[in-house]
Amino acid sequence: MDQLSLVSSNKIFGGYQKVYSHQSSELKCKMNFSLYLPPQAEGGDVKLPVIFYLSGLTCSEQNFITKSGFQRYAADHGIIVVGPDTSPRGVKIPGDDESWDFGVAAGFYVDATKEPWSTNYRMASYVNKELYELIQQAFSNVVDPERIGIMGHSMGGHGALISTLRNPGLYKSVSAFAPICNPIQGPWGTKALTGYLGDDKSKWVEWDATELVKKYDGPPLTLLIDQGSIDQFYLDKQLLPENLVEACRSVGVPVILKLREGYDHSYYHIASYIGEHFDFHAKILKA
Amino acid sequence: MDQLSLVSSNKIFGGYQKVYSHQSSELKCKMNFSLYLPPQAEGGDVKLPVIFYLSGLTCSEQNFITKSGFQRYAADHGIIVVGPDTSPRGVKIPGDDESWDFGVAAGFYVDATKEPWSTNYRMASYVNKELYELIQQAFSNVVDPERIGIMGHSMGGHGALISTLRNPGLYKSVSAFAPICNPIQGPWGTKALTGYLGDDKSKWVEWDATELVKKYDGPPLTLLIDQGSIDQFYLDKQLLPENLVEACRSVGVPVILKLREGYDHSYYHIASYIGEHFDFHAKILKA
Repeated sequence: MDQLSLVSSNKIFGGYQKVYSHQSSELKCKMNFSLYLPPQAEGGDVKLPVIFYLSGLTCSEQNFITKSGFQRYAADHGIIVVGPDTSPRGVKIPGDDESWDFGVAAGFYVDATKEPWSTNYRMASYVNKELYELIQQAFSNVVDPERIGIMGHSMGGHGALISTLRNPGLYKSVSAFAPICNPIQGPWGTKALTGYLGDDKSKWVEWDATELVKKYDGPPLTLLIDQGSIDQFYLDKQLLPENLVEACRSVGVPVILKLREGYDHSYYHIASYIGEHFDFHAKILKA
Repeated sequence: MDQLSLVSSNKIFGGYQKVYSHQSSELKCKMNFSLYLPPQAEGGDVKLPVIFYLSGLTCSEQNFITKSGFQRYAADHGIIVVGPDTSPRGVKIPGDDESWDFGVAAGFYVDATKEPWSTNYRMASYVNKELYELIQQAFSNVVDPERIGIMGHSMGGHGALISTLRNPGLYKSVSAFAPICNPIQGPWGTKALTGYLGDDKSKWVEWDATELVKKYDGPPLTLLIDQGSIDQFYLDKQLLPENLVEACRSVGVPVILKLREGYDHSYYHIASYIGEHFDFHAKILKA
């Protein structure tokens, strides 16, 4: 584990919430990620399932670990949880901090192809290759490589969906809170995809969950989507879960859309239902 | 409710986490406080117990409502939760923002008697009179004035203890995470008490839980103290729970000290055991 530096470690619900930093070869910068080791990891001789959690716009690895209360459920189920940051950090590309919805903390979990972003903004390869493999290697004593799931929120919900749909079999379970479901149809998505990929819209569909599910040809999957009914970004048609549901139904991919009356886009929504998501993942990962 | 302005309202665990602002007559400034209304408050015709939560140094009303996950337990038990801020805000006394452990966000829940603090820094009267009465008046449809408890963390744990011990019967139940238990014996406490009360140590003992419990003559009380074993401030002898326990035993006041192996001073400790504290308060408040 030479390549990892321990940033912090706090006991919670009998396990340990840790944050590590490491030098990312994909992103060419130093990155933080969080790792929750549930009490069942103690001793280090039992292989446990893993869930990756991808955060939303403006977040770092901190928001989920301090605000969601997920550790209670991860401890109950004996699941390791990994939370990457949301973009490269400290690479200082002109304009990278001018918008809250593009550049720093807004990597959209795609691999940029357009200069100047293409050198560093490779969040898809970072999460699904580099970090995915790093976790298995560095924590090989407790990680079961056959039982890995993914979830996320908002931009990170989009990330969880496209990571699963583009890499059949990599993640056995997937769920999302208030995900951007059809980015090519919303303002955030079109801004990000134009910035990272250029104007050719035929490239955008490779990173759009609603488009990807229509061509999905991997192992059976059930998508769980959790959406607050008064979420302003949902009402503003940034998220468009109905488009994803319609696409899923057109191709026979099972999808569950939970529309939660009165909940908004915040972590208060996530905290209220993260337990249900852990139940959903555990049922699949521990089957 | 003319005097209250709603700052925010977010649905969580079926209830609503709200933040209000109001003009405080005790503190002579505008103050925020949080209020969680559990699902049982809907309809507004059932009287529910209330717990006040006092936060620690550097905190505002936000830390507890975003990081502790208490709402799950408040919703389970049907308890309203009120969280004041930790000091007057925006009153601009010279030196009020020079220290993290004195002045802004460090009111210590005492009534200052020394200039220039005595005009605004009246947190004891603010919490135990002004806010205590305001909550009963503004939410009279759902608040049961006979079932009010108090808890807190660190400086706020000290606040919960002295608020209870100085005002017999005002709070029916009390608990604290990593409280400052004997402030006249620790660096934070002696700095604050010197600053707010002056050099006369005979005044300090009126605001010290360990000293107060020796003279307690109110209704029966059980103190619950929750302390992480590797909490740096505990190890540095800022908190001194053993002194409080010894004083309690000397006068026959029941006290429970839970020393939690491996937990630190953070909200990760609080999140892990806040459920047990709600169980403790509920048993008393709902008896």
